[in-house]
Amino acid sequence: MATESTTSRLRVLLAEIVDLKNVVSLLEWDQQCCLPPSAGEGRAEQLGTLQRLVHERVTSDELGREIDRLAESTRGLDPDADEVRLAAVSRRVRDRLVRVPADLVAEIARVTGVAYGEWARARSESDFARFRPHLERIVDLKRRLADCFAPYDHVYDPLLAEFEPGMKTAEVRGIFDRLRGPQAALIRSVAARAPVDDGFLRRRFDEAAQWAFATEVVGELGYDWARGRQDKAVHPFTITLGADDVRITTRVAADFFPSCLFGSIHEAGHAMYEQGFDPAFARTPLADAASLALHESQSRMWENLVARSLPFWEHFYPRLRARFPGVLDDVPLLAFHRGINRVSPSLIRVEADETTYNLHIMLRLDLEIRMLEGTLAVKDLPAAWNEGMRQHLGMVPPDDAHGVLQDVHWAGGSIGYFPTYALGNLVAAQLWERIQVDLPGLDEDFRHGRFGGLLAWLRKSIHRHGAKFAPQELVRRVTGSPIDPAPYLRYLEGKLAAVHGS
Amino acid sequence: MATESTTSRLRVLLAEIVDLKNVVSLLEWDQQCCLPPSAGEGRAEQLGTLQRLVHERVTSDELGREIDRLAESTRGLDPDADEVRLAAVSRRVRDRLVRVPADLVAEIARVTGVAYGEWARARSESDFARFRPHLERIVDLKRRLADCFAPYDHVYDPLLAEFEPGMKTAEVRGIFDRLRGPQAALIRSVAARAPVDDGFLRRRFDEAAQWAFATEVVGELGYDWARGRQDKAVHPFTITLGADDVRITTRVAADFFPSCLFGSIHEAGHAMYEQGFDPAFARTPLADAASLALHESQSRMWENLVARSLPFWEHFYPRLRARFPGVLDDVPLLAFHRGINRVSPSLIRVEADETTYNLHIMLRLDLEIRMLEGTLAVKDLPAAWNEGMRQHLGMVPPDDAHGVLQDVHWAGGSIGYFPTYALGNLVAAQLWERIQVDLPGLDEDFRHGRFGGLLAWLRKSIHRHGAKFAPQELVRRVTGSPIDPAPYLRYLEGKLAAVHGS
Repeated sequence: MATESTTSRLRVLLAEIVDLKNVVSLLEWDQQCCLPPSAGEGRAEQLGTLQRLVHERVTSDELGREIDRLAESTRGLDPDADEVRLAAVSRRVRDRLVRVPADLVAEIARVTGVAYGEWARARSESDFARFRPHLERIVDLKRRLADCFAPYDHVYDPLLAEFEPGMKTAEVRGIFDRLRGPQAALIRSVAARAPVDDGFLRRRFDEAAQWAFATEVVGELGYDWARGRQDKAVHPFTITLGADDVRITTRVAADFFPSCLFGSIHEAGHAMYEQGFDPAFARTPLADAASLALHESQSRMWENLVARSLPFWEHFYPRLRARFPGVLDDVPLLAFHRGINRVSPSLIRVEADETTYNLHIMLRLDLEIRMLEGTLAVKDLPAAWNEGMRQHLGMVPPDDAHGVLQDVHWAGGSIGYFPTYALGNLVAAQLWERIQVDLPGLDEDFRHGRFGGLLAWLRKSIHRHGAKFAPQELVRRVTGSPIDPAPYLRYLEGKLAAVHGS
Repeated sequence: MATESTTSRLRVLLAEIVDLKNVVSLLEWDQQCCLPPSAGEGRAEQLGTLQRLVHERVTSDELGREIDRLAESTRGLDPDADEVRLAAVSRRVRDRLVRVPADLVAEIARVTGVAYGEWARARSESDFARFRPHLERIVDLKRRLADCFAPYDHVYDPLLAEFEPGMKTAEVRGIFDRLRGPQAALIRSVAARAPVDDGFLRRRFDEAAQWAFATEVVGELGYDWARGRQDKAVHPFTITLGADDVRITTRVAADFFPSCLFGSIHEAGHAMYEQGFDPAFARTPLADAASLALHESQSRMWENLVARSLPFWEHFYPRLRARFPGVLDDVPLLAFHRGINRVSPSLIRVEADETTYNLHIMLRLDLEIRMLEGTLAVKDLPAAWNEGMRQHLGMVPPDDAHGVLQDVHWAGGSIGYFPTYALGNLVAAQLWERIQVDLPGLDEDFRHGRFGGLLAWLRKSIHRHGAKFAPQELVRRVTGSPIDPAPYLRYLEGKLAAVHGS
């Protein structure tokens, strides 16, 4: 039985850790949104001090003992009871840090700190040779990191587990193998049809009006402005500074409409997830996302399945036109809808459309796994990248800046992160099929600007559970099946038929 | 002799403390400039956690031992050597906290965290009853805080000492007693003269242009924009988040020109002080102001002695007119200069002119002392405020929003703080008499927009020393006398003769 005193000491320790992590988030938010030009060095020192305090507390023996006591005292209770899950999740989070020696953590921080600058320069000069020794070191360090979690089925498993608790490399490969062929076939079929015009998205849209429109829209979708705010950032992100403080960021381009609006909706999708955690989980590790794939399922659902749908724009298009007088007078609703859903393969992942995006991810996953296994040497990476692009997307980058050097992730030491993007797309579509069953009037709701029904469903089914369930467990609970690519393929087929004609 | 190892362990401990304090400042800056409306409670918890960590570290036995070791190892050195002063200042800062139990510190943080939001709402609704229970709790906590320093000459002494190291309540009262009569007489003499027109300050000044002009001016005075930034805040303040991150805030009123410009210059005066500490003091307690009075002497000097002077406007007035086309065409330079120096009692402290300002402070000091002594109940505070306003300034506020609720200080737990504003006015004038001797060409410098000579003098005489010297000690070193109201009265007489005629 969990006594009051057992849980209360643990909760004090956990609350302090969550507070410190949220403060680290504030330091990072401020670094990206507000920091004066000369203050970078001082901020790095502050971040170092805070992160060391977090590490000391998470790995402390006292925390380990209190987690064990909670696990003991709740033995035999309903395995879904919050306290049972709190013990399990707390232990998982702690074990991840306890297993890794402090000097390996420091070495990874040092190497990636240097690698970031070298990558940025290598990319701007399209010079892979400059980045190569750093990536070799990073791959080596990540292999050593994985070895801290031996034995494992696959060397990639422990890296993936940082972002997707409980998932195996074999599982992800199995999902992607079922996706690859049909998705490539869909893209080929689009290429055979008449191209869609989206040139009007590059007209001049007043920046202040874009900002105001995005603010209005995400508020109507359900982002709680009393518990968040939006700022500009070079690389948009969502960040949680507390149970009632989940901030989004965006960028605004006067000559490219989708950046601000769809970016804001994407980030608001992330933020509504974090705003929806059970308030009872506040200041515990349960107040976290189940995984990055689940997180991405929320941002992608609002961005693509909701905000690129026709019913959504039946509601918002007149207001959009009124907000930018004259700019879209010659673009009827259906043409606008087709334009924002245009399929067109791109060399650059972050510019990819909904249909081709996953192919970028499959390429990266394949390369990450082979580098970790040692079956692909870093020196051979550019050639493998280009060959993969040819196979997956039928195009080859003109240089490494538009190819293997385009993403920051590897320079930052994030290996195991990419697959979560594609998994998020699949989960979004899988949840969507369930939502269609549970909420049959959804299109009609959207047409009238009513998004509360959808948000309530997501809150109840996904958000409030926070990190209580592992990602596959949560998806199975809600949809009856583990992560499955079929609903995503069905969704794409329907969308392409509507947009490009069947 | 101070060995390398003695000082380096101490410096590690001090650096961690300074980092944590700067993070607390970031939490506070964000609270006032950015925090979403519903996030107040969570922020209060985070502040409580961080302040407890600071408290644990400052009061740790290890820090005490390391300070003692430094004091021992530097015994017999020049008493002005940095290391000698570092030991003394570190010990003073530590002793202030050692005396106060951690749970009292946490309680004050928690209560003031909540009180801030309640004050803001109480002020916007002019509803003192909403704020009253919070202020009662704060006064009680402050009395308990003072008792940690018993025995004392006066219950207010320990609170004052937090802001003015080494000063006593009796000393401050003595200075104010010498000031009150002559200052009131000066104001009466002005009231007998022809009124000065300042109506043009309430014309419509475009807000964005005000912001841009203030940004330009404070940069030319010497505020380093690469090591700071400016944001809007309801109650403007300056805050230091690191040696290279000193931020200012302001408010802008389209129909009241002085708010933004003089407010920005005031805050930039504070900020230039903090930007001017000896870089060798970074991440030690010497990187701090000597006291709040010294701090205020800097803000007031730039705001009043510099930016309300005629030579200053001989340089800037043509640019001001150009910035607001047509708005000031009918206002000659001398009329403008008279207008911005007009003496006219105001209900609001932060809008008070230079001559009446100190009377606002004397009122607050009197009320604070009586609340602490227990001779004034918080419930009777609004009546006492209004009566004091009548006596000191001959006017009574129409509601509590324009009276007792106008300042944020008490909501933040700052009791003992107000007198430092008036002392700052006195120190500014006292330094100014010295500066006139050392820099005889100052007026000519200002006429040509050269402010570097003044800033260099302040850097050398005041800024770079940081907290190395106590306030009275520093003032005596620079001017030859402790804080003295006579130079301030002489300055006011001269100013009033120039503006209102003699």
